[in-house]
Amino acid sequence: MLRAPLTPAQDAFGQLLSDLLAGRHVAEVVERDDGCMFTGDPAYYVAPFRSWWPQERRAMRLVRGRVLDLGCGAGRVGLHVQSRGHEVVAVDVSPLAVEIARERGLADVRLGTLDRVVRRDERFDTILLLGNNLGLLGGERQGRQLLRKLARISTERGRILAGSYDPYEGASESARRYQERNRKRGRMGGIERLRVRYREYATPWYDVLFASREEVAQLAEGTGWVARRFVGEGTGYVAVLERACTRPRSR
Amino acid sequence: MLRAPLTPAQDAFGQLLSDLLAGRHVAEVVERDDGCMFTGDPAYYVAPFRSWWPQERRAMRLVRGRVLDLGCGAGRVGLHVQSRGHEVVAVDVSPLAVEIARERGLADVRLGTLDRVVRRDERFDTILLLGNNLGLLGGERQGRQLLRKLARISTERGRILAGSYDPYEGASESARRYQERNRKRGRMGGIERLRVRYREYATPWYDVLFASREEVAQLAEGTGWVARRFVGEGTGYVAVLERACTRPRSR
Repeated sequence: MLRAPLTPAQDAFGQLLSDLLAGRHVAEVVERDDGCMFTGDPAYYVAPFRSWWPQERRAMRLVRGRVLDLGCGAGRVGLHVQSRGHEVVAVDVSPLAVEIARERGLADVRLGTLDRVVRRDERFDTILLLGNNLGLLGGERQGRQLLRKLARISTERGRILAGSYDPYEGASESARRYQERNRKRGRMGGIERLRVRYREYATPWYDVLFASREEVAQLAEGTGWVARRFVGEGTGYVAVLERACTRPRSR
Repeated sequence: MLRAPLTPAQDAFGQLLSDLLAGRHVAEVVERDDGCMFTGDPAYYVAPFRSWWPQERRAMRLVRGRVLDLGCGAGRVGLHVQSRGHEVVAVDVSPLAVEIARERGLADVRLGTLDRVVRRDERFDTILLLGNNLGLLGGERQGRQLLRKLARISTERGRILAGSYDPYEGASESARRYQERNRKRGRMGGIERLRVRYREYATPWYDVLFASREEVAQLAEGTGWVARRFVGEGTGYVAVLERACTRPRSR
């Protein structure tokens, strides 16, 4: 997770979105700290609801009340949720993404990190970390810290919907090597140190967490959250965390 | 221009072609030494003749006799020329590209650099540097050296067809800054120090020359070649170089 808004030279993600929305053919380039490059089609960042991953579409049924959309990007999820009548507070560290999300109609978009832009007395019923934004947990220590912060700004019936995929299922040889290196360094296997690069722009390096369902459940323990269920049966899933103080429904 | 065949870990270009031909969605990532990233659709490397740039299609009329295809890649141009009945010798420094070009039916594909794989007594009537392979000239000193070598292995009626685009026409601000930096260092403005990156593979850094038509004409002077004409009226062109000892047609 990045600790401050990106400077213009660092806003590779925002520049990418900006060119994408201007109709240019762009590819997302993500560099990992072992020199591995990943490219992808960034169209998903502005995909309409009907084209979303099935687990994200299904998870929308679990959205309730006042919503916090963390790492909102161009507003893919926030705009959908807002159109369904929810009050949405959206947050991103990319100045251009924030500008774009506002232009696209998201009413309350804030530039910066959680600590700076969400008041201590604000409360949310649903906190969205979709589109692999579970990655913002970054790792064990950093992840628990963020979950505790989110517990403090959530209502008693608060719920987190966090998207990720299991990084160990069907991992490539290169992925397994990287995961092994993490473990040797005492880090969770699925952490990836990445930066986004686009034209002359590059974000700082930051840790992105990919985790198995079991790891998510463990990570939540003692943070005020319980992993109640996972939407999606394949590699990709949406973890549903609920406040630990809320009684399980079955009782 | 690279001075030796790529090692497996360096063969980013070949791995990209290999995945492309296996039907995967891939993007080409080229990194410049100032940190700028360029991405593109690599489909052009295997495009059929009807989809080629107009200047390349037109330049095909100028192919005659025995042909040398320098930097043949997956064999886009070599295969077309061979199918028109020419004897083609194709050369590339990418082991995987060479393998792919052979599998696709190119009869004589050689792995390595010109000096190593073309015999001193071989002669060619047409030398192809298409798909921006004029870039292999690399710069002034290196470019003149390569042109002299090509003169020694060309017949008296030898002809080079070299593709490039004018890097100064409509250059972006970032391109102009880079060109200015080159000039301050005594280099031709249009040189770019690049490497291809793909997954965990990265080529070594190498200089790629983009040049205006005037620069190509100057570069050829005294190397045994004369820039006779340029096919293409836009930014992109194919330079037609003929042996300086051949009398101009108009006399």
